[in-house]
Amino acid sequence: MKPDAAIRKLVGEFRAGWNAHDAIRLAAVFADDAEFTSWRGDHVGGRVGVRAHHAAVFEGILRDSVLTIDGLQVRPIRPDVAAVDVWWSMTGARDDAGALRPPRRGVMALVVTRSGEGPWQILIFHNVEVPRDAPGPAQGSGPG
Amino acid sequence: MKPDAAIRKLVGEFRAGWNAHDAIRLAAVFADDAEFTSWRGDHVGGRVGVRAHHAAVFEGILRDSVLTIDGLQVRPIRPDVAAVDVWWSMTGARDDAGALRPPRRGVMALVVTRSGEGPWQILIFHNVEVPRDAPGPAQGSGPG
Repeated sequence: MKPDAAIRKLVGEFRAGWNAHDAIRLAAVFADDAEFTSWRGDHVGGRVGVRAHHAAVFEGILRDSVLTIDGLQVRPIRPDVAAVDVWWSMTGARDDAGALRPPRRGVMALVVTRSGEGPWQILIFHNVEVPRDAPGPAQGSGPG
Repeated sequence: MKPDAAIRKLVGEFRAGWNAHDAIRLAAVFADDAEFTSWRGDHVGGRVGVRAHHAAVFEGILRDSVLTIDGLQVRPIRPDVAAVDVWWSMTGARDDAGALRPPRRGVMALVVTRSGEGPWQILIFHNVEVPRDAPGPAQGSGPG
């Protein structure tokens, strides 16, 4: 599988884990020693940390959330390293008081890597929430 | 110079360019083919794009802005590739109507690379604005 296809599959699996609210499935696409920073600056380390973080939010503020991938851009850096921008939108997120938030948009800024013939995995994850009228995925990007 | 020191110097030069409101100096630490995405989803490509974007904001909403680096974490990925989290705070930013905004905080999520013996440069730049009470730079990070 070409890198681009493998990376798109990885992002699809992330989305599937999210929409099943399945922290184990979602965390499985992260590297053992991944770094995860949320849109509000929460940081967790390792696949184990990613799993625990999502297990909590999938029972909490994201229990009814639905994630849509609006566009995806892969920027190769080395044969086994790429930066990936994933433009997303979301409905069903709640605030800390439990109230539904309006639909949200953002960008997940990933660095994905692979070791030898191993699978592509997310090593670095940052999430950015952008205004709803933000310019959106750059021209030419297709849905992930 | 060891990668960590060279990368800290790069971030220091970014800050110096910012605080001088000098788009040419700031853009000089970006790769020719850099990708820049602002905290609100604006995207520009290339050192030339970075320069033009900052020339505009340094005469506009950021004309009185002062950038402080609160912490910096370098995550080596390959010998010539690293991810860098730069925690920042800012005063003096204005909104589109020209009114002063309250002090802001955020994280610049960079991917820096070098070619051969060339300088480390910013290849990928995403900015995240975080709440003022966000957890902040992870323990162990020092000021950049």
